[in-house]
Amino acid sequence: MSKKVIAEIIGTFVLVLFGTGTAVLGGGAEGVGILGVAFAFGLSIVAMAYTIGVVSGCHVNPAVTISMIVNKRMDVKEGLVYIISQIVGAILGSLTLQYFLSTSKLATDNLGQNSFGDLGAVGAFIAETILTFVFVLVIVTVTGKHGINKMEGLIIGFTLILIHLLGIPLTGTSVNPARSIGPALLVGGEALSQLWVFIVAPIVGGALAALVGKFVLSSEEA
Amino acid sequence: MSKKVIAEIIGTFVLVLFGTGTAVLGGGAEGVGILGVAFAFGLSIVAMAYTIGVVSGCHVNPAVTISMIVNKRMDVKEGLVYIISQIVGAILGSLTLQYFLSTSKLATDNLGQNSFGDLGAVGAFIAETILTFVFVLVIVTVTGKHGINKMEGLIIGFTLILIHLLGIPLTGTSVNPARSIGPALLVGGEALSQLWVFIVAPIVGGALAALVGKFVLSSEEA
Amino acid sequence: MSKKVIAEIIGTFVLVLFGTGTAVLGGGAEGVGILGVAFAFGLSIVAMAYTIGVVSGCHVNPAVTISMIVNKRMDVKEGLVYIISQIVGAILGSLTLQYFLSTSKLATDNLGQNSFGDLGAVGAFIAETILTFVFVLVIVTVTGKHGINKMEGLIIGFTLILIHLLGIPLTGTSVNPARSIGPALLVGGEALSQLWVFIVAPIVGGALAALVGKFVLSSEEA
Amino acid sequence: MSKKVIAEIIGTFVLVLFGTGTAVLGGGAEGVGILGVAFAFGLSIVAMAYTIGVVSGCHVNPAVTISMIVNKRMDVKEGLVYIISQIVGAILGSLTLQYFLSTSKLATDNLGQNSFGDLGAVGAFIAETILTFVFVLVIVTVTGKHGINKMEGLIIGFTLILIHLLGIPLTGTSVNPARSIGPALLVGGEALSQLWVFIVAPIVGGALAALVGKFVLSSEEA
Repeated sequence: MSKKVIAEIIGTFVLVLFGTGTAVLGGGAEGVGILGVAFAFGLSIVAMAYTIGVVSGCHVNPAVTISMIVNKRMDVKEGLVYIISQIVGAILGSLTLQYFLSTSKLATDNLGQNSFGDLGAVGAFIAETILTFVFVLVIVTVTGKHGINKMEGLIIGFTLILIHLLGIPLTGTSVNPARSIGPALLVGGEALSQLWVFIVAPIVGGALAALVGKFVLSSEEA
Repeated sequence: MSKKVIAEIIGTFVLVLFGTGTAVLGGGAEGVGILGVAFAFGLSIVAMAYTIGVVSGCHVNPAVTISMIVNKRMDVKEGLVYIISQIVGAILGSLTLQYFLSTSKLATDNLGQNSFGDLGAVGAFIAETILTFVFVLVIVTVTGKHGINKMEGLIIGFTLILIHLLGIPLTGTSVNPARSIGPALLVGGEALSQLWVFIVAPIVGGALAALVGKFVLSSEEA
Repeated sequence: MSKKVIAEIIGTFVLVLFGTGTAVLGGGAEGVGILGVAFAFGLSIVAMAYTIGVVSGCHVNPAVTISMIVNKRMDVKEGLVYIISQIVGAILGSLTLQYFLSTSKLATDNLGQNSFGDLGAVGAFIAETILTFVFVLVIVTVTGKHGINKMEGLIIGFTLILIHLLGIPLTGTSVNPARSIGPALLVGGEALSQLWVFIVAPIVGGALAALVGKFVLSSEEA
Repeated sequence: MSKKVIAEIIGTFVLVLFGTGTAVLGGGAEGVGILGVAFAFGLSIVAMAYTIGVVSGCHVNPAVTISMIVNKRMDVKEGLVYIISQIVGAILGSLTLQYFLSTSKLATDNLGQNSFGDLGAVGAFIAETILTFVFVLVIVTVTGKHGINKMEGLIIGFTLILIHLLGIPLTGTSVNPARSIGPALLVGGEALSQLWVFIVAPIVGGALAALVGKFVLSSEEA
């Protein structure tokens, strides 16, 4: 098993466990609040970017990996290995959260899964596309030719905080198919039937961002 | 359409959608809180500074553009193109928020517009002038001759968090005519009749900051 | 009037207006919360460090200026000019907050003044000495010979957030005689009679930190 | 007494006093909230990393010291001196918090001690092992051969915020035997009988992280 596989599994495990775990265990608005959940997701990226980043680039998100393929920074075959690793890591994260909940005698039907909320499928699709577009636009730019080196993990993590501040009241915020697949597989029901939006929309938003980054913001130029 | 135009439209769109969207959708003090809304505005600047910054400088604010003209860092003609782009981006941001609200069957008469609050026109004018003065003073200094390069987007964004912590209880915080124009045009009524303060005061505060930065803090010195 | 004087007046004005203003206007724990007030004080330092820092070093605090005198980084005469400027800036900050409150028809007897709380004079003195010791220890170290250059404003500001998280429930947190003098002069009463602790204890804590920094952490070593 | 001893005592004192003090005095979820407590622990590390870091490396945590011994970055004898200093600092921190509480006529049976919560011994052990694994993995990587120099204190501190967001609802978050020993010795009872988990699990998680960092992420490679 290559080091990149282990790195992506660890990174996605941390993102899903700490992000969804804070949302579920933190007591919602009365406890850790939307801002606290947003920080948990964002700081997971900060922590992992400086840890597994040097090994795998810390994608921990199939939408990011696909946007790197779109911009020819990664080949399709390696990309598939990344995506599978990310899904494995996410499922392990959700399983760990489920263990903590069941051991504490708490309900396990809320693992922080995403949902359409009041938006319906179309509204949720548009929301996730915009949210992922902004997230991946930052990623392709700060890691591109005019990038900011040592600070990029910090800026990408802070951007994910931002994305969650708007996204939590809308869909709970996916912008990451692996982050949605983990909880949905364990919870089933509506989370599973709505899952396609949280797979397709982030990929669409991410791919659009890759193209805008490359051709409008010239992030790939030498 | 030049790349700078697209960059300023995207940047102001993100600032207005994520900033006002978090304020409106986040459930106010009981949900995301003043601190959460402040983070949404501030982190929008962080995200965009490292994304569109290399293309357009990430003004996303007519008061910033005008302060750059005052200090002769930008000519008037290009400045006008920037300002129009910013207003277009802001309107698109407010339209997107309106779409999410109406799709969710929520009221659309609150799009995060600014208002005099309890301060009246004079009090609000003074508040916005001071708030924008501090914000733009930081901007002209950190982007000036003694600037801090890669860190400037972070510091400017953190300053906008600060500005909102004091400004939200006062006027909701404009410090940016485009950010006020977007919601006001769609909501109308009082937001429109009070709009002049949120256009004129930020310009006055920003221009004052540009002059203080140049002549007192010597931010333009070689 | 020298540029350093203007710089220290602006910086302390911003610290007191934004810090105490957020505490008073932000609605306490139900609104912006202790964390929000802590961020307002801390981010004021971040904003000002990168703005007036290049002119005056951004002391904005007599305890910091005195600790610099103790470590012979500044002469007494210039230090006195700094301290007077800081007190002027703080009073202007409190006057501005008073204006916003009275214009909004709100009570003006709470301008964010410090108080002994439940601690009594001795407890408050010890609390302020410890709080200022930690704050100034960070300052003398990060600005010293092994300092961190461009990042120091960020680290000092983040430290002031930390200081307020513990200090707000204790005394409201002074660690800065000017920050306490401004509100106390306008509010009078108990704030004025307890003021001596918030002048003397920060000076004691700051001076101790200067000596520990110099002789234990060797922050002044070449 | 060597400078490293004094440095580790000061650092652990600050971590325990500000971290547990904010948790106890800040009024819980209604006051400073989980996010505020998380910031207090995380920003203590930020403040101390840039202060005592240049003297002792700012371990302030026996699990960190032991992981450094595991990776042969420190010899056992010096490590023992570090660990004793950390425990002394932690006890001083808890004693100071106890003083503030008793002077304020508040109960002193809550000093921010860790507990199994609803998890039981096994669940708490697993939680602390995972939490410490993530924390120390970040530490060994960012301070290792591919490290990030001046930014490492910031990233480690932000990671500790993250660790607390998930960990506070679980066990209160130890990840640091000294941080648990301080309160437990003064409070006694259940805190003392459960203490072994908060000593052993962080050491296990930290040692695992050291090995994964070294052999999987190659953090020690030249």
